[in-house]
Amino acid sequence: MKVVILGLGSVGRGVAEQIAKKDLGITITGIADSKSGCIDNNGIDVTEVLETKRTTGVCGNKKISAPDILQKATYDVLIEVTPTNAITGEPALGYIKTALAHKKHVVTSNKGPIALAYRELMALAAKNGVALRYEATVGGAIPIMHTLEQGLAGNEIIALYGVLNGTCNYILTRMAAEGLTYEQALMEAREMGYAEADPTYDVKGIDAAIKLVILANTLWDNDAKLADVDLTGIDLLTPDALRLAEDEGCTIRLIAEASPCQHLLRVSPRIIEKDHPLVVDGTLNALTLETDMAKEITLIGRGAGSTPTASAIIGDLLCIRDRYDKRP
Amino acid sequence: MKVVILGLGSVGRGVAEQIAKKDLGITITGIADSKSGCIDNNGIDVTEVLETKRTTGVCGNKKISAPDILQKATYDVLIEVTPTNAITGEPALGYIKTALAHKKHVVTSNKGPIALAYRELMALAAKNGVALRYEATVGGAIPIMHTLEQGLAGNEIIALYGVLNGTCNYILTRMAAEGLTYEQALMEAREMGYAEADPTYDVKGIDAAIKLVILANTLWDNDAKLADVDLTGIDLLTPDALRLAEDEGCTIRLIAEASPCQHLLRVSPRIIEKDHPLVVDGTLNALTLETDMAKEITLIGRGAGSTPTASAIIGDLLCIRDRYDKRP
Repeated sequence: MKVVILGLGSVGRGVAEQIAKKDLGITITGIADSKSGCIDNNGIDVTEVLETKRTTGVCGNKKISAPDILQKATYDVLIEVTPTNAITGEPALGYIKTALAHKKHVVTSNKGPIALAYRELMALAAKNGVALRYEATVGGAIPIMHTLEQGLAGNEIIALYGVLNGTCNYILTRMAAEGLTYEQALMEAREMGYAEADPTYDVKGIDAAIKLVILANTLWDNDAKLADVDLTGIDLLTPDALRLAEDEGCTIRLIAEASPCQHLLRVSPRIIEKDHPLVVDGTLNALTLETDMAKEITLIGRGAGSTPTASAIIGDLLCIRDRYDKRP
Repeated sequence: MKVVILGLGSVGRGVAEQIAKKDLGITITGIADSKSGCIDNNGIDVTEVLETKRTTGVCGNKKISAPDILQKATYDVLIEVTPTNAITGEPALGYIKTALAHKKHVVTSNKGPIALAYRELMALAAKNGVALRYEATVGGAIPIMHTLEQGLAGNEIIALYGVLNGTCNYILTRMAAEGLTYEQALMEAREMGYAEADPTYDVKGIDAAIKLVILANTLWDNDAKLADVDLTGIDLLTPDALRLAEDEGCTIRLIAEASPCQHLLRVSPRIIEKDHPLVVDGTLNALTLETDMAKEITLIGRGAGSTPTASAIIGDLLCIRDRYDKRP
């Protein structure tokens, strides 16, 4: 199976490293970062490209761009791991459409295109007889999409409740454990590298809401949009609120919840019993699925990170290899 | 897809009810309990059979046995859900071998045959080009096998740690929460229907050890046997031990753990931090998988019960339908 990788940040690097390291029958024929690219239809030397990127800041030839790779490289699967743009989805959205239109499978960690154009992209994939997979968009390493598709096949998913943003969870964990103010905990999260310089997307609940939109579309194909999410962030929470919750054996977590029968699509800080499986510490993510047969199933794992996210992408690649690529 | 069900206890009833209720494209052509059976290659009226079983104690004709059904009914998949015999695996082991030899897929919730004869049965299935699936043997409704196969595909599983016996977990939860003695908590578990009259298999850790053997064989094909498990039950635990653990922010759980590189295969009461994802309450089960890429992934859910176990069996059935049954 031949793949091209667009995007060579933390996720792209993790994917390239793992493909190079593991004997998965996957050959990388094209790689692009934002400024350059390289193509070798016989297989790129990943170690060399990553070393070039590390020392020079670019991975290849500045005359080769991401669109060039989509047009000129030989590949079965596009691995789209450029930065997320939640407003336009671009340039990822365009890359994904181009690949699907050329009957190439797509695996992405990019929330923007999936949250903005779920129906359009799935229809385009179906029309062209290829797969569009996006396990890495929600819950990092946690195999949520695989579980919904396969492990819980036959179940009706009645509702879901998730801790989908590691930055918020870290801040809330630290506020509860140490009695820190929101500002103190945010500063600590920044120092640990868990929060961006501008933490708006995380602490206002937007990142969690985008993931909730992706889950809702996947589960119920309900054309949910970011604007449909009832949204409250964690930035106004006080240590007093957390202390009151703790006094009752509870704590506060930023919970993303969806339930079609209740017309519910909400991200907000919720008081939750401390021994509930969703109450995970630090930057962990967790998702509880409420189903008709299996009842509640909770999945917990790393919501971010180079190698954990690569795990989700490689799971998608192997799924495509096994299910769609059984050509004679 | 046509299926026969051998065994009509709580699990068999749950499976039959869900197949009848849901539009899954599955037709039941044979059902047997321990004393009788019925065959209808055009599809059995499940509601009628369950009503007959409820009122008369038998599901059908006393002249029709389980082996008759395996020989005479038309079916693609055997659903084997008779009671577990951990010593001989019979009669389930014989039923499963017969079906596999006749090139029929098998789905089972029966721990005995899988723990006793994993390699032999998998070889027989492979030789005959059919599937043997057993998601329901470990962790009830939790899609553990699907996650290992698909969601975490490409990962190396380095170690696993599980709470695999709901009875023990209930007893330990109650001892910690209320300061009960082991005997008091066991009596309560019996009253709640969570413990058998003879609780030996559960409280001595044997049930958890059998599940651990199944997981170890699935993951590492290491021919692990029950006798290889280093086994300590919970029946000698004192409220004092639990109190000491609680004083340190910890609690005690019966943990099944395996790690091939450490040559570890053990079931024992372990002191564990209360905020660890594995610390679940009541009869819940939980499993943490330690992997090379995804790092730690924890799955939590119901470890038993009629409908939750049916969820696992139906997941296996749909997997067979989608993956093996794409005949023209």
